[in-house]
Amino acid sequence: MPVSPITFYFDFTSPYSYLASTRIDALAAKHERGLEWVPILLGPVFAATGVKALVDQPIKGDYALIDIPRSARFLGVPYRHPEPFPVATYQAARVLIGLQREHPDKATAWVHACFDAYFAHNRNISDMPVLHALARGLELEPTQLDAWCADAQIKAQLKANVDRALQSGVCGAPFFVVDDEPFWGVDRMPQLDAWLTARF
Amino acid sequence: MPVSPITFYFDFTSPYSYLASTRIDALAAKHERGLEWVPILLGPVFAATGVKALVDQPIKGDYALIDIPRSARFLGVPYRHPEPFPVATYQAARVLIGLQREHPDKATAWVHACFDAYFAHNRNISDMPVLHALARGLELEPTQLDAWCADAQIKAQLKANVDRALQSGVCGAPFFVVDDEPFWGVDRMPQLDAWLTARF
Repeated sequence: MPVSPITFYFDFTSPYSYLASTRIDALAAKHERGLEWVPILLGPVFAATGVKALVDQPIKGDYALIDIPRSARFLGVPYRHPEPFPVATYQAARVLIGLQREHPDKATAWVHACFDAYFAHNRNISDMPVLHALARGLELEPTQLDAWCADAQIKAQLKANVDRALQSGVCGAPFFVVDDEPFWGVDRMPQLDAWLTARF
Repeated sequence: MPVSPITFYFDFTSPYSYLASTRIDALAAKHERGLEWVPILLGPVFAATGVKALVDQPIKGDYALIDIPRSARFLGVPYRHPEPFPVATYQAARVLIGLQREHPDKATAWVHACFDAYFAHNRNISDMPVLHALARGLELEPTQLDAWCADAQIKAQLKANVDRALQSGVCGAPFFVVDDEPFWGVDRMPQLDAWLTARF
């Protein structure tokens, strides 16, 4: 019986999603699982859960600005807190959906390119010229990106991703689901790892 | 130069505080640090951060009911989700403050007795008869508990604990502070451990 993949819900402007993205490929490979990247927008998720974005919350936001870079150091991941933060990510997400449809071999590279640009090199991934530059690194035409960003089917797919996330109980990002078991947060990856080794 | 203790802010009705309480003594001992238990009430903290209690939040609350018992299994800690949940904890907290003032040798045992009663044995620690029974196990007189619960100085100290927590940036529980470095959540104990080993 084929095993189901790890579904990874994320928003490109989520620092903890970035941290998780640097480790999830290896974790999936270790357990011989596929990996399904599902880009979402956290705005609708926050609306559904009734909370603000982390950095907009009093006290908790201040803590996050300590915890995020420290978590990056703990995990050995390059991190430079970007400015502006957060940014709109629907364009980066639509490009990923376009790649998943037409060039699935480049989809994972796009995820890592966007996260790395924003969180390690302070490049604003809400600017189309930045996305164009990243696309050239993957031998994609900038005009192709523009077409995907305006593609009605791709726009609908991004909305469908958010709906699916909400129906799956996603309450933040990163959020993993495997065999119907939910794990929220980069700090749950040790549990995800242990659970895939021997369900507990 | 004497090293400062680990300050551990917690609420007796917080499941993740309970999980952390089962491991923090060993972690402090490993690093030759003292441990300062600071009981607080999460209500005022939630008011300050503008969030509801975890289980009262849509979607997130449902996830918590999966995550809490799974985290307990992951850590090898007995857990039985209590009913009712949450409960008022000002009495258990006041008794702890009374012990810290008059019988500091029994304070840690009280913390563990309350957490164990509530989260491992479903005993309602908001009921004074339950607290009386726990006190007898520590060779304390029930009348002494009643006196502490009505003690104006102790009531004021509990409020002062909450104020101190808010001033220290506490945004939830458990929350640890050591050498001015804040760590929020039982899932940050690996970082706390690593940080005490070699600041990073």
